Amino acid sequence: MLVNGETGNLISIRDRGFLYGDGVFRTLRVSNGQAQHWRLHYQKLQHDCTALGIVCPDFAQLSAELENLLSSQTDCAIKLIVTRGISTRGYAPSSQTTPTHTWDVVPLPDYPAAWVTHGIKARLCQLRLSRQPCLAGIKHLNRLENVLAAREWNDTEIAEGLLMDADGNVIEGVRSNLFAVLNGKLTTPSLLGCGVAGIQRDRVIAWANSNNVPFEIRALNWDEVINADELFIVNSLIGVWPIRELEQRHWTDFTTAYRVQLELSE
Amino acid sequence: MLVNGETGNLISIRDRGFLYGDGVFRTLRVSNGQAQHWRLHYQKLQHDCTALGIVCPDFAQLSAELENLLSSQTDCAIKLIVTRGISTRGYAPSSQTTPTHTWDVVPLPDYPAAWVTHGIKARLCQLRLSRQPCLAGIKHLNRLENVLAAREWNDTEIAEGLLMDADGNVIEGVRSNLFAVLNGKLTTPSLLGCGVAGIQRDRVIAWANSNNVPFEIRALNWDEVINADELFIVNSLIGVWPIRELEQRHWTDFTTAYRVQLELSE
Repeated sequence: MLVNGETGNLISIRDRGFLYGDGVFRTLRVSNGQAQHWRLHYQKLQHDCTALGIVCPDFAQLSAELENLLSSQTDCAIKLIVTRGISTRGYAPSSQTTPTHTWDVVPLPDYPAAWVTHGIKARLCQLRLSRQPCLAGIKHLNRLENVLAAREWNDTEIAEGLLMDADGNVIEGVRSNLFAVLNGKLTTPSLLGCGVAGIQRDRVIAWANSNNVPFEIRALNWDEVINADELFIVNSLIGVWPIRELEQRHWTDFTTAYRVQLELSE
Repeated sequence: MLVNGETGNLISIRDRGFLYGDGVFRTLRVSNGQAQHWRLHYQKLQHDCTALGIVCPDFAQLSAELENLLSSQTDCAIKLIVTRGISTRGYAPSSQTTPTHTWDVVPLPDYPAAWVTHGIKARLCQLRLSRQPCLAGIKHLNRLENVLAAREWNDTEIAEGLLMDADGNVIEGVRSNLFAVLNGKLTTPSLLGCGVAGIQRDRVIAWANSNNVPFEIRALNWDEVINADELFIVNSLIGVWPIRELEQRHWTDFTTAYRVQLELSE
């Protein structure tokens, strides 16, 4: 674990990340000693920092720290957090704030291999995501909605919960982005009002665009989702998981999910 | 500064308060060595912890720690944070989590005395608060909306920004609760969809109720606010500040604000 480039696992209780959730984060998968898609993660980190007015640490600096961390790791998950740093009391940040950044290394979660090959059981969460265009898409540290949604179930057979907004649009999973195949067209929810735009979502979109796969980003309602030809979720740790069961519906055709698994693994 | 009852100012980067803003807080004013309205603050802390499913530290324990802190203080601001603590990776908290609690002591902000007596200049923020009934009223650590709103201005003459929700209801100030006098009736915005219900707001409501002051809690739109007979804001540090200027409107009659100042000071 590193805090501002130094070995350590502690931050100040005056850090704005702790006080206000005033920061952003990334979760990286490390396989065979390589942090997967580090450049894409950095681009997102930079984008999200800019959206909040936080000065993003330099790419070269973070890359060096990451390389240092990886020297003793082969397969793990790495969490990178950048906060606005410590500033004087009150919500308004002082202009002189130096951002804090922390790295944490944890073992890869031990998910059943069958979730990749045979799909997962998912549920619909009761919590509805709030609409906040100023924060939509950003992977920021204000994640109480995700925490409350994740507390809704403790059946370990259920791998993910899907989240709707107050208007009944399905937005994402608690820790993943959602794709649906609707009448043969790959579709993912618009994240202009809420949700987190992960890099695996971007990679699926980029793949669809560059391969003339029929594709659309738009609002998706529950009826469309539950009646989709296929559903699958993506994130940096899990890759691609087909959904085989959601509430009363079951799926057995994972053709598109398998194709995306193959494309994204390359 | 204390962390879990011990002298210190550092917490783990694995604390859920840091990772997710998974916690709540209170800001207390200390005057003449006394933490004002400590019991009310504790009741709110307990309420907010319960709302998030966090085990609130014991009243006797926190009171003892507070007393200890106050032994070397006469006038200051104290921030108390309670988080869900450290748990395994992922949004779902493990059931065995031990909450973290931290105390921080800072000097009282040095506001102009005239803001109490002659009122403040306020502005309307562009940021609109998101609607999330699951979190409304709770003083939780997901405060990015307040941070973004506070970044909208840097004119130090402007003491507060007012916040509307997406429907155009005026909800609160960035760091305060709002009261309006409308046709002689004291009115404060409903906080069922968003906002933080502070203890000074409760105290004003309790005073109005027990003194047969005409009073109402309901949705307030911008037209009502800007045309109000009087406006004032409250919080634990500032007490009561009349609003003398908001956008193009000026007020000179602070009768109700003065009365509330007097009542709340007792």
